[in-house]
Amino acid sequence: MKQAARLARVEGRLIGLVPTMGALHEGHLSLVRAARKSATGAGLVVVSIFVNPKQFGPQEDFSEYPRAFEADKEKLAALGVDVVFAPSAAEMYPDGFRTSIHVEDLSVRLEGRSRPGHFAGVTTVVLKLLEIVQPQFAFFGRKDAQQARILRQMAADLNLDAEIVVCPIVREPDGLALSSRNAYLKPEERRAATALFRALDAARREIEAGETDALRLQTTLRRVLEAEPLAKTDYAGIADAETFEPVTRLHRTALALLAVHIGSTRLIDNMLIEPGKDGDGDFRASL
Amino acid sequence: MKQAARLARVEGRLIGLVPTMGALHEGHLSLVRAARKSATGAGLVVVSIFVNPKQFGPQEDFSEYPRAFEADKEKLAALGVDVVFAPSAAEMYPDGFRTSIHVEDLSVRLEGRSRPGHFAGVTTVVLKLLEIVQPQFAFFGRKDAQQARILRQMAADLNLDAEIVVCPIVREPDGLALSSRNAYLKPEERRAATALFRALDAARREIEAGETDALRLQTTLRRVLEAEPLAKTDYAGIADAETFEPVTRLHRTALALLAVHIGSTRLIDNMLIEPGKDGDGDFRASL
Repeated sequence: MKQAARLARVEGRLIGLVPTMGALHEGHLSLVRAARKSATGAGLVVVSIFVNPKQFGPQEDFSEYPRAFEADKEKLAALGVDVVFAPSAAEMYPDGFRTSIHVEDLSVRLEGRSRPGHFAGVTTVVLKLLEIVQPQFAFFGRKDAQQARILRQMAADLNLDAEIVVCPIVREPDGLALSSRNAYLKPEERRAATALFRALDAARREIEAGETDALRLQTTLRRVLEAEPLAKTDYAGIADAETFEPVTRLHRTALALLAVHIGSTRLIDNMLIEPGKDGDGDFRASL
Repeated sequence: MKQAARLARVEGRLIGLVPTMGALHEGHLSLVRAARKSATGAGLVVVSIFVNPKQFGPQEDFSEYPRAFEADKEKLAALGVDVVFAPSAAEMYPDGFRTSIHVEDLSVRLEGRSRPGHFAGVTTVVLKLLEIVQPQFAFFGRKDAQQARILRQMAADLNLDAEIVVCPIVREPDGLALSSRNAYLKPEERRAATALFRALDAARREIEAGETDALRLQTTLRRVLEAEPLAKTDYAGIADAETFEPVTRLHRTALALLAVHIGSTRLIDNMLIEPGKDGDGDFRASL
């Protein structure tokens, strides 16, 4: 992989990387299309598939996480991906491996609080992938909004060449954000899982009606989630999009962020809340 | 700097980096000569000068650390250095900077124990420099043996392109290892400072006479240091060259490692202890 990347660099070809854990769905494929567009002409599009043990907690679903390597390869071939990079855990973390990357503050809130060590696992593996693949662009989904923010901070702080590109959330027709973990859901859980979208959409309607009190919006999120018997909320709130600190009143770009257990499956989702373009104090929300 | 490095890479020129904190002495210059040799022909030799605040503890000598930028530039020009990269602290660590690199185990012993946070400061700044300068080779002195070991681990773990090259210690005629901090020593302290070399040299003679008991060698190190009234030992012992764990009997490559306060100046020095080439159980020691 390093040799292929070095050759592409020497030949002046742009490299686009889409890091994934496999079990690819339409969300991943939208990132691949974005990469194909960025690595124009003779560019090299690389998709990595690696279920990264370091970003799973000891009680989490590493061993159950869906694997579908053959199906993944077919999907990627159909999209004209140049390289599928699928290293083993022993190659990525040989005996004696002991280095980690930490992004302070941003990594201890919300997802970081619920999943200690998760973001250090993510930043460490992403830095390794960026070093191996040497892309000018790396593509991530906005569903993992906090992850994307942390990776952008890491890229800036460590003077990385790669630009972290964040792409929109892709949803099912009923609003459920695509996730490899959706495969865990039993039929009645699958129906209940729309509660995340419904909660965000209820908050969106209030924002479009002029609501800027973040605590009222949070109450709306929680009300919808609590009405769903199969849902157990981990967190639901409005956070600043830069600092991920809680917000009490909308004044600049923010995110409504949810983490909810549906049965034994933990799902996350979010909504981007941006100031309106005419500067009249209104906000618009994008699911 | 990034643009110059990118251009050199595209042109196929090898890049050699010598990271320094300035106040350059013959030890640094030996690294520059090694870099000049590696970046053969039209290669690019880059010397960075940056007194990195993150590798100094709150009680340490960051503000007093010697600065000699004009003299440094003259020395480097005389050696045909292509680029002197001297960023400001505000450029390296802008507001909101919050990323750090950690190398476990190796960073908490000896120097790491005496200087908490020191190695995280070193690994973070070196990774930044490697990302900015994109060298194939980066040169460090063996005087900072633990630092060199940690940087090699980081480079391997993070799949970096750069090879960490470790060069021999350069000494004054009386054996004192060159260090920018030697400038702090008053005349009587300067004389006392040879105790580090004398301790290592006494252990070397015992090793050449067949001694393999590391605890006896440690006793020798401490005996010589304790005989010097102006010296106060921080640590003095024999550690494995890979793990930096204490060694009780020589069996593979090890280091004799010293950290000693001479007055208010803290000095370090070390000696490499390697198995003899004929495999007869003998060891040879290099100062």
